[in-house]
Parts: sequence; C-alpha cells; structure tokens
Amino acid sequence: MLAVAVFVALLGCLRAQELRGHVSIVLLGATGDLAKKYLWQGLFQLYLEEAGKGHNFSFHGTALTATEQGQEVVAKVLESLSCPKDVAPARCAELKDQFQRLSQYRQLKTTEDYAALSKDIEALVQREGLWEAGRIFYFSVPPFAYTDIARSINSSCRPGPGAWLRVVLEKPFGHNHLSAQQLATDLGSFFHEEEMYRVDHYLGKQAVAQILPFRDQNRKALDGLWNRHHVERVEIVMKETVDAEGRTSFYEEYGVIRDVLQNHLTEILTLVAMELPPDVGSSEDVLRHKLQVFQALQGLQKGSAVLGQYQAYSEQVRKELDKPAGFLSLTPTFAGILVHLDNLRWEGVPFLLMSGKALDERVGYVRVLFRNRACCAQSEQHRAAEQSACLPRQIVFYIGHGVLGSPAVLVSRNLFRPTLPGGWEQVGGPPGLHLFGCPLSDFYAYSPVREQDAYSVLISRIFHGRKDSFITTENLLASWAFWTPLLDSLAHEAPRLYPGGAENGHLLDFEFSGGQLSFSVQQPEQLVPGPGSAPAPSDFQVLRSTYRDRPLVTAWPEELIAKLADDVEAAAMKAVRRTGQFHLALSGGSSPVALFQQLAMGHYAFPWAHTHLWLVDERCVPLWDPESNFQGLQTHLLQHVRLPHYNVHPMPVHLRQRLCAEEDQGAQAYAEEISALVANSSFDLVLLGMGTDGHTASLFPQSPTGLEGEQLVVLTESPSGPRRRMSLSLPLINRARRVAVLVMGRLKREITLLVSRVGHEPKKWPISGVRPVSGQLVWYMDYEAFLG
Amino acid sequence: MLAVAVFVALLGCLRAQELRGHVSIVLLGATGDLAKKYLWQGLFQLYLEEAGKGHNFSFHGTALTATEQGQEVVAKVLESLSCPKDVAPARCAELKDQFQRLSQYRQLKTTEDYAALSKDIEALVQREGLWEAGRIFYFSVPPFAYTDIARSINSSCRPGPGAWLRVVLEKPFGHNHLSAQQLATDLGSFFHEEEMYRVDHYLGKQAVAQILPFRDQNRKALDGLWNRHHVERVEIVMKETVDAEGRTSFYEEYGVIRDVLQNHLTEILTLVAMELPPDVGSSEDVLRHKLQVFQALQGLQKGSAVLGQYQAYSEQVRKELDKPAGFLSLTPTFAGILVHLDNLRWEGVPFLLMSGKALDERVGYVRVLFRNRACCAQSEQHRAAEQSACLPRQIVFYIGHGVLGSPAVLVSRNLFRPTLPGGWEQVGGPPGLHLFGCPLSDFYAYSPVREQDAYSVLISRIFHGRKDSFITTENLLASWAFWTPLLDSLAHEAPRLYPGGAENGHLLDFEFSGGQLSFSVQQPEQLVPGPGSAPAPSDFQVLRSTYRDRPLVTAWPEELIAKLADDVEAAAMKAVRRTGQFHLALSGGSSPVALFQQLAMGHYAFPWAHTHLWLVDERCVPLWDPESNFQGLQTHLLQHVRLPHYNVHPMPVHLRQRLCAEEDQGAQAYAEEISALVANSSFDLVLLGMGTDGHTASLFPQSPTGLEGEQLVVLTESPSGPRRRMSLSLPLINRARRVAVLVMGRLKREITLLVSRVGHEPKKWPISGVRPVSGQLVWYMDYEAFLG
Repeated sequence: MLAVAVFVALLGCLRAQELRGHVSIVLLGATGDLAKKYLWQGLFQLYLEEAGKGHNFSFHGTALTATEQGQEVVAKVLESLSCPKDVAPARCAELKDQFQRLSQYRQLKTTEDYAALSKDIEALVQREGLWEAGRIFYFSVPPFAYTDIARSINSSCRPGPGAWLRVVLEKPFGHNHLSAQQLATDLGSFFHEEEMYRVDHYLGKQAVAQILPFRDQNRKALDGLWNRHHVERVEIVMKETVDAEGRTSFYEEYGVIRDVLQNHLTEILTLVAMELPPDVGSSEDVLRHKLQVFQALQGLQKGSAVLGQYQAYSEQVRKELDKPAGFLSLTPTFAGILVHLDNLRWEGVPFLLMSGKALDERVGYVRVLFRNRACCAQSEQHRAAEQSACLPRQIVFYIGHGVLGSPAVLVSRNLFRPTLPGGWEQVGGPPGLHLFGCPLSDFYAYSPVREQDAYSVLISRIFHGRKDSFITTENLLASWAFWTPLLDSLAHEAPRLYPGGAENGHLLDFEFSGGQLSFSVQQPEQLVPGPGSAPAPSDFQVLRSTYRDRPLVTAWPEELIAKLADDVEAAAMKAVRRTGQFHLALSGGSSPVALFQQLAMGHYAFPWAHTHLWLVDERCVPLWDPESNFQGLQTHLLQHVRLPHYNVHPMPVHLRQRLCAEEDQGAQAYAEEISALVANSSFDLVLLGMGTDGHTASLFPQSPTGLEGEQLVVLTESPSGPRRRMSLSLPLINRARRVAVLVMGRLKREITLLVSRVGHEPKKWPISGVRPVSGQLVWYMDYEAFLG
Repeated sequence: MLAVAVFVALLGCLRAQELRGHVSIVLLGATGDLAKKYLWQGLFQLYLEEAGKGHNFSFHGTALTATEQGQEVVAKVLESLSCPKDVAPARCAELKDQFQRLSQYRQLKTTEDYAALSKDIEALVQREGLWEAGRIFYFSVPPFAYTDIARSINSSCRPGPGAWLRVVLEKPFGHNHLSAQQLATDLGSFFHEEEMYRVDHYLGKQAVAQILPFRDQNRKALDGLWNRHHVERVEIVMKETVDAEGRTSFYEEYGVIRDVLQNHLTEILTLVAMELPPDVGSSEDVLRHKLQVFQALQGLQKGSAVLGQYQAYSEQVRKELDKPAGFLSLTPTFAGILVHLDNLRWEGVPFLLMSGKALDERVGYVRVLFRNRACCAQSEQHRAAEQSACLPRQIVFYIGHGVLGSPAVLVSRNLFRPTLPGGWEQVGGPPGLHLFGCPLSDFYAYSPVREQDAYSVLISRIFHGRKDSFITTENLLASWAFWTPLLDSLAHEAPRLYPGGAENGHLLDFEFSGGQLSFSVQQPEQLVPGPGSAPAPSDFQVLRSTYRDRPLVTAWPEELIAKLADDVEAAAMKAVRRTGQFHLALSGGSSPVALFQQLAMGHYAFPWAHTHLWLVDERCVPLWDPESNFQGLQTHLLQHVRLPHYNVHPMPVHLRQRLCAEEDQGAQAYAEEISALVANSSFDLVLLGMGTDGHTASLFPQSPTGLEGEQLVVLTESPSGPRRRMSLSLPLINRARRVAVLVMGRLKREITLLVSRVGHEPKKWPISGVRPVSGQLVWYMDYEAFLG
C-alpha cells in the first residue's frame, strides 16, 4: 500500500509539471436546488476526471445568500458528494477532501463583488505560479437575474487576454420566438456566441448523447437504412406520471410544448434526422448539420397537434394561483405532434413527438421503426429473432425509466449487430420482458456500464468546449421559429381532458392521416360537455337549385368540394372515354386549393396520364414566384399526381426574361397551343372563380380586352397587384363543354346576391358574361357565399 | 309420415306446372378422378338446390369407356353421393334415388355418338312435354382432347334455337401467351365467347368467392381504406406441404408459376385490386373491372421474382421421366413475386404472391395489411384489441387449411365490425391461437356455416350463368401477356434449392427493395456449390487512370454508376453553393438509365429543387413517344424526384404540330433559353455517351452542323433511325464546367481502343472533339468497355 501511495504522489508531481493552466469555475446559485442536487456533484465528477490530467482548478460557489449562511449550505453539500462505485472509500475521502479545499462559497451581489472575485482569482493564479486558462460561470439562477449577472461578468469578471470565458445558461430561453430573440440580443451584448453554453440537459442523457456516436460507428450498416425508403416512422417520447402540482405558476406560463417539445424532443429530432457529418467530433460541423434540419422542417399547422390536459389541472391552478371558481385553464399538459421534413432523406417519414404529465408510466425513448419489406415462407411460429426478416426491425435509444429502468440502446437482431463504444455493455434484462412489441431477447441491448447523470456529462463537455452538446443562438431561434406559429394558433384551443394515470385508457391515442393528427377515439361526453347543439356539416344535404337559370350546387365547404371533385372526375372519365384526352383549365387563388388537394389525395381512378392542365389566368410574375397561380397548382396538385411533363401548360408570362411583354406574343402563343391541342379550342372543363367585384378569370370590370372579340388569350390589368395578368377570354371560356364556377366564403355574399339579379353585362360584371355557347354551366357555392 | 309424403308429392305437382324448361348436363370424362371426387357431387348438389325451383334436369355421364364398364363406375359414384348435414337420411336416400334416375352413362366417341346424344335429349324433352332451356358440357378431359370434342359438339350436339349452350373447360389453358392464344382461337372457331366457361377452381373457394361480396357489403368502411394511403401490402399465398412426386411429367412442363400464380393467385389479385363496380351482381361490370386491373399491372422483370426448388425434385424427375443421371431440372417449385400496379389507388403498394411445394405448412390466404398510423399514449401492456389503434390492422381472406383449418374472413377488431352475408357466422377457434401476429381474439372471425367445395359452388354458378366466376378469353390472354415475359426471362435461371418442410428454415424468406426481390439469407454453400471462383464486382477497386490524357474512372458497372452518381451530386452541391443553381445536361439512351435510377433512389441530399435539367440531344419525335430521350428521363428520374416544372427543359423538337421543322426555329429557341438561364451558356455538368461509330450527343461523323462554328444547338441526321435529331453542338458542350463521358458494355470495346489513339478529329470521330475549353473532362468506363 505504501508503495502505491508513493507512486501516486510521484505521479502527482510529474503531472504538476505539465500543468495546462488554472480553470476557475463559478457556480452562480450554488445554494439552490439544482446546484445541490446535480451541479456540485457534477463539478466533483469533473475534478475526479480532469485533475490528474494537468489542469488546476478552483470552484467558487456563489449566491445572494450571506457568506456565513451560504458557507454552511455548501459545506453540507460538499460533505454529501459521492464517488463512483469503483473508488475505494479511503481514496474517496481523500479526493473529497482535496475538492473541498479547492471549493469555497462567497456572496456575489454587486458589480464590485464580481470585480473582487476576479482579483482573487488572479491573485490565486499568481500565488500558485500558474497561468490562467479560463473561467466558467454556471448560471443556476432564475432567468430574470441573467441580464444583471451577465453585465457584471462582462464588465468586471472577464479573465485576462489569452484565457477563455464560458457562461452556462439554463432554460427557459424565452417563451416564444420574440422573447427568445430579445433574450439572445441582451446576452449577445455581453458575451460572444462562442462564450455561451445553453444547457438542454437532455443532450447530456447518456442514451441521447449516444445517438450521433452510434450513427457514426455503425455508419456502414445504417448508411442504406437511415432514410425514407427504409424508415417507417420515428417516435420521440417522454412520458411522465407526475403532474404539475406545486409548479403551476411556472407550468401555466409554459405548458408541455414549451416545457418539453420545443427543447428536449426537438433537439433529439435533430440528432436523428441530421445528415451525419464526416467527422462527428467536429462541433462546428455537427451544429451546422443540426441547423440544416431546422431548414427542412415543414411548418406546423393546427392539425399537426393533439392536445390534452389532465382533469385535476385547472383545480390545481385555481388553488395555487388564486383563480376564481369558474377559471378553466387551456394550458396543455399532453401533446402529440406530427413533424415532417421536406428533404429527400426524410420526405414522407412521420416524426411523432409525444409528451405529457399524469400518464400511465414514466419513460423516455426515441424509436426508429423500419419498414417491413419481407415476406416469409416460414410459418410465423418458427420465426427466429436473429434470422427472420418478418419480425419487427427497430432501433431504440431508451432514455430511461419505464420497464427497462436504465438508459439503453436496442437494435433488433434481424437488423445488424451494432458496434458501441467502450463504456456500454450488452445486457439481458429480466426474463419475459416485452417492449416495442417484441421480447427483449429479440434485441441486441446495450446499457452504459456506469450510469451518469446528465449534468455530469454536460459539465465535462463544457470544460472540453464541446459546443455541439449545447444550444447555440441560431439553433434556439430556429427552434422557436418552428414552434411559435403552432403555439400561437393553439393558444385558444381547448385541450382534451384526461383523468390521469392508467385510467386514461385509449383516450390520448392519436393517429395521422394526410398530414393531420387526431385522437383515435371520440371524446367521451362526460368529460367535456361541448357546445353540443351546433349543427355539423353532415346534418345538411347537398342542395341543388338554380342560380342565374343554371344549375346550382350548394353545401358546406367540405361537401361542396367533394361534390365538385366528383364532378370533375366524372367529366374527366367521360372525356377520356370519348376522345382519349381531358382538357382541364384551372383558376388560381385559394378556393381551388381544397379542390386540388381533394383530387390529389382521394381520386384513385382519375385519368391523370390522359389529362392536360391549362391555366385560366396567370399573374405576370415568374412561374416560381409564390404569387404565381402555377406555383399553387404545382404545390397542391402536380407534386402529388403523375401528370406527364408535356401535358402541363403553364401560361407563357415569362419569355425572354421579360414578363408579359406585348412583343413576346405570349398570349398569342398560348392561344396557338390551345388551338393546336384542344379540339375546336373547346376545353372539357373550365374552373372559374368570382371576385367580390364580379371579375372572373383575370377579366376585370371595364377591361378593354377579353370580354368580347376574337382573341382567345389576352393580357389584362388588375385593379390590385400584381396588376398585369394573362387570361383566357370570355369568348374562349364560353366555347367550353363545361364551366364550373366555385364561390366560397362570407365575403362573396354581397356579389353573389348582386350578380343573381343582373343580366348580361360583362363590361360591368365580367362573370355575367360566362354563358357557354353549347356547353353546360354549373355554379358551386358554399352556404356562406350563398346564404350569408 | 304419410301426410308428409302426400304433401311433398303435391308440392312436386305444383312445381311441375311452373317448369322453366329442361337442362341437360353432359359430364365429359365422367369416370375420371375429378369427376369421381368433385363433379358428380357438384351436380347432385345442383340438383338438390335447383330441382325444386322449376327446372327439369337430365345428367349424362360420358367417356370413351365402353358402356357397361362406364355404367358400373358411374353407378358406384352415384351410390357414394352425400347430402348436406341438415337433410335427414331417409330424405337423402329419396333424393339420391331421384338423381340416380335422372343420370345415365353413355359412351361418347364419334361425331355420330354426339348426334345420337342430341337426338336422345330432343326425344326426352318431347316425350316429357317440356321445352329445352339449355345444355351444359363439362370438359373433364385432357386438353389434347378439347378440339375434337369441341368440333363434335358444335357440329352435332348444339341445342335447337332458343336454348343456350355452355361448355365448361378445365385448365391448363395453354403454356404461355402464344399457346393460350392458339387454344383460344381453336375453341373460338367452335364456340361463342359467351358459351365458354373456363374454370379456375380457386374462384369457387368460399373465401375467394367472398372477396367481392365482402368489399361490396362493407363499402362504407372500406371506401377510405382500400387504397395506397392506407394499405401497406397485400399478400396472396398458397403454400403446400406435398411435393410433385408422381406428377413430375406434368409439373416439369409447368412449374409453380404456370401451375398456381398465373391463374389462381392472379385471379385473387384482380378481385382485391379491381375498382369495385356499383353493382357487383353484374358479371359484365365485374369482368370489365377485372380486365382494367391487368392494364394497370406493371411489367415483371427478372428481379420481380425469387425461385426455389425442393432438393429431391430433380431426382424425382430423373426417376419418373427416365432422365440421365446428371440431369438437373430448372423448374421452380417455389416462387415469390412482387407485383405493382400503376394506378392511383395502388401505386407503390406491394402485392406479394407466394406459392410452393414441400413447404412447412399447407395454407392459403389473402392478407391485406393496413399501415399503422397511430401513436399510442397508453403503454403497450394495456392495449385492447377493439380500441387500440396501435395493434396491427388487417383483413384476411383465409382460403383454408393452416392453423384455422377452414375458410374464414378475419377483420381486426380495431378496424371495423364487418357485415357478412347469411351463411357466414362468427367463430372463435381454439383458445390461444395466434395468426398473422395476433391472437385470433383480436379479429372478428367469420366462417361459412356450411363448407362447400369449390366445384359445387362453380357448378351452381355455371347454371346461373355467372360468367364473372370464370376466365374469359380476354382475361386469360391478359394474364398470359403479363406472365409470359417473366417466364421467358427466368427460363434459364437456377432456382435456389431447399430441403423441404420445416427444415427450410428462413431459406425461402425474401425481401423487396426498389422493386426488386431477393432472398433474405445467403444461399448456404452446401446446397449449391456455385461456380465459386468467378470474381465478384466488389473484389475490384474502382480504378483511376487516364484516357486521352484526361482522368479515367473504370469499375464494374454497379460501382461505376455509383461513383458517377456521387460525382454528379458533388458537382451539384458545389454549383448550388456557388450560384444557387445547378445546370445539368443529360444524354438519352440506355446507359444513363442506371444513373437516373441511382440518383432517384439513393441521393437524399441532392439539391433537386435548385437543379435545371437540359437535354444533350433529342430525337425528332413527340416527347411522349417511347423513342424520345425525354420520355426515358421522365420515367426513370422525373417521376421520382421533386423538380419544379419550370426547371425541366425538354428540347423543342415538336412545335406547331411539326417535328424539327427548320422554320419553327426550335434549335435557336433552345439556344436562346440556354443563353438566358445558364450563365455564359456554360453548363455545370454535361453527361455524354459514345457510340460505336464514335458519335457523341447526336453529333455523327461527317455531320455538317454542330462540330464547329457558332451555333449552340443544331439539327442533325443520324445514320440510323429515327434519323432527325436535335443536339447541343461541340462548341457549346466544350463551354461546360465539367463533362462526363459514360461508356459501358463489351460492344464499345473497339471504339474505345480506337478513340484512345486518335487525335482531334471531330469530323471523323465526333467524340474526339470533346475538349472543354476551361472545364474538366472525365471518362467513366466499365471494365467491359475498357478491358473488353
């Protein structure tokens, strides 16, 4: 034993000679809960790991608490520190003693206090004959205190030149995009971006921290699998059994999306979805690739979310926040979110995020489920986990708790045998354990040899400057930019109430379809007595009548669009049977979007391969301009159906790099194209709208062109921007075999009434000039447009 | 008892008065196995069902067998007939007696015999004071006898005017498309289409016959589900435990695809996939919709199939067919096939067909598995079959045998509660029974109250003229047209050998990916010692060298294409970073197809939204012509990536309904478009090929245009058709930042050698004129082209 001690002492001397400089770590809020529970232990852990490697440390616990009182608290915390299991008690006592000697508490209130701290550190460094490597300030304080502290550090406690400064910040980092930006700007006036380490402690959870290394070390096996062709879905889940009791003052401000999804689950999503940089050890590359994920995220709609609130929540809020008896909170305590990425790797793959309080179990995991592309000749009774391609294939990063009880990485045996870094070992788990639809024995399962809490992991990474384990300003703002519109749109939505715990049953199960989420089971009435008596659209029949002596179809919007889509399909089938082709001319604007979507998603027998698409009118902007009618058609229809390229006929508004120049004769060219391809220039179906001024197509009141005459296609002027347009003329429209006019929304009520009374006055009301010579005209109006 | 007998007799009298006429049923081959086992029983069944409903019957068993001998056999068969369980024994004896009296055997050999039969039927009808309704001839004879019998029936045994004729034919109906067509033509010279009833006895299996009625009666529930958005896959499976021993003379000619897949499984596929007609009772509508399915089937490739042969098969063939000792059969006894439909309802949904002999169980089923689109908040231990959206959702038509042992329709409880017609009842099955990954209790399970064999079902349908339960000539030829190319392409493929039974293990499990099937596990060496020493492509490195003083990449085709695709992507990324756009000019032909596919399927980060596609050359045909280069680009690339419409630049070879007319100035227009959009008319990448005559793009030796001069785009003439072309000129190509020349295949060996030696002689060898002014030129050649 003596020999060993001498050897250790010698080693200590040797190491002292290669000292890498002095690091001061200032723990602000050193007497608070987080510090007591995790941070001091994390600092001790850092000391254990790094002290032998050449650095010299001092630890400064600080708070507003008076010196003596604070010293007492800190002393108690230091006493309770623990060593890893593999350190002998005697050695542990020795190490704790060393650490205690390097740690001290001091009150830190005024700028002068910070200046004094800085001087003390400098003195210490000089006294010991060292050089200063850097200072870490860990903000374990409420966010409202950030700015003052930041100002003091910046003005009075920066280390000298050549030494680095790192400030560690804890969430919340704002409440929405604006406040996060404000906070970021404030901090940015005191610190450089590279000095700030924003903590999302999930990035320190061992299973989460393993995602990128796992992807890196199993690159070869994953390379062909990690994409939309093979991944069926990704689930990112954090379920809690506890509720928000005692924390409602915080929770009422935040709710589950801000509390868990905007940060933890989004961070995990970026780690799963990002393009893997060649070197995952490069913080810069990792951060850049993470940011690219945010660029690819499809915007969330109200329909991308389902929200719940455990039943006791409002009562807890009333009690804790002194709210009146009738107060009902709308704050969600449960959320399911469907996220899609718009890139080639992940297009169409659902990323399902779910989190909630008062659920039936506590568990966190990321589950990547692969598509089943096998067909097994062997009967299912005899399928073996390591061989059968027909058993589920999945990779799970098990964050903790749940039936497993510890962090783990699980890989289905029929996928591949993974490589994990040292520090992870294969584990068995209790016999008979089932998870994710399989016995545990169907997986290669790995757990860390030594479980480490997230803060210990992160403190080590701060020390090593691994910025990729922290939230950069860009990353933070990108995440808020992604979540804020959803939060805004959901602000007044009533969440579904749930009883809590196992009683929730299937109440919170949800499903996705066409990019929308909805709960799988109906809301039972006893929980929320809804408005109840309002008529549902399906209570009404589609009404048929006449308008301007032509057939009129009226209905609620959904039924109206469904009917119109059916009629368009019927016309298409008929035309294709008759001539082999269907010539369809479509208007732009917002009303037809629902029709495009309906046609794209629901009409399986539609003869797209034989359909020619023409534009009724176009704005004189490049086709790729968001204002272009063609752009809407492309986004909502063309991308979803297989129309041959040469059957698509955008209007030539953009020739020779000019927009609708008379001398480019775009209108004439379009007219020629129509004459060449459409028999008798008679479209099979023309879809029109009607403006509040009675315009249709881009034919506006008093237009000098297009209302009469020989021209088939004309240039016109809109009273509102973009002013210049190209449009089919009334005479051409009136040659169609069928014309459908779609009118929707309350704003159209007045013009609908008016036009019902006027005769044939196209100069005043261009829509009144729509009178197919030998074709059929049908009006499609929703109740709001027709009945007001 | 007496009273009852009197009542029955009275009833008989009453019924006699409403007689609907006489029907003669002639069973040809009445002493054969099929007749003995199924057909006589089916006729008796028909009699039981129909005799009371107004028709009068006579049954004529016929064969080549001499009268007395035949009578003996038939008498024995008639004795063994059985009644349904619910008929009392005494009543059964009475009914059998009646049936026996109506049935008789007669020898039928010559045309005179047929004429005599016809006369006898006429006499019988007259004697009984009836009128003749029709005649059914059931061909239970070998196919070689068909033509003679058909001729005799047609010439000498047709019923008189006003009565119908139905001839029932048993498979095989030919061996491939040609022979089926021949057979159909032969039969067509004797019978009208509506007179022929081709039997596929699977259409009489109760679970198969239930598919359309089930779809019809559950229209409302299925309407939104029966499509690519909800169906994950369809499996159509028929597994047998028996092998072909004793039948190899037949089997060696046919094999599993002709024996089972071309007919039974294909018929089932059409029932599942067809658009449901409004009235499923209309044979005509059903048949028309079935035919439409064939039109939508995507052609099969060699890669659409996996084949197996049980190990003992070749030995059985050698024994039974007296083959020499070394004879090895290539006839498959197992096949897995991946079928895709090219319509909006089913696009992308895999239909997996599987059948084989000597497998581990006997079972047949059609399984429609729905996508799982749910995410459950409830932990998986507590998911209930009727509620949880996270349990598997499937509909199974269980044809028979297997663990259930009887026909059944299964619908997952979390889907919907189905409606089934009378005659089907809900069943439980043995406790603990698992199938298709679920306990049986997770399904609504229905079985027929009374199991009926397929022939009884079909004989009844022949009688009722339900032509949709039979194979029309069009249907038959469409099916052969679908299968014959695959059969041809597989004719010389060696199937994987399998031991048979449970020992097969996972040897026959297969998987699909990118439209290709492959076995999931490697072929173990002990079963088939392959050629062994041939080098695999991966044994070679991609080689780099130079060719004509420019970089050369050589490799096996797969590696070469992978490398080229990587290089194209790298160029794209670089260009987009630099300018925001990537201008890519592609050649047509067959070599680039593999590149297109590689780019479409594997390159997730490719910046398609910023890529402009140009054509290097085009044939003067309409763009929708299969000969058009653009058409290949559309099929293999554009349909799979999201390229904005306006970023696609087909060559304007077709203007004003004319092809490449000088006066339409298409070449000039393309040149203008290039000048307008491509900076300096310098493409980022031009992909070229090289013809065996040294041409590149559509620039042929001695071309008067395009080899030099100012013109960017030119019209040229090809020595082979289609002769007229549009092409980028050499001067334009040489402005590119990068040019890649892809040369593949043994046929290019000679020109490759030759061109390696020539200097700059574009008039003679246009490819030698490819010398980018300031860009880079890289040659990509596979080993066959480069090393011969």
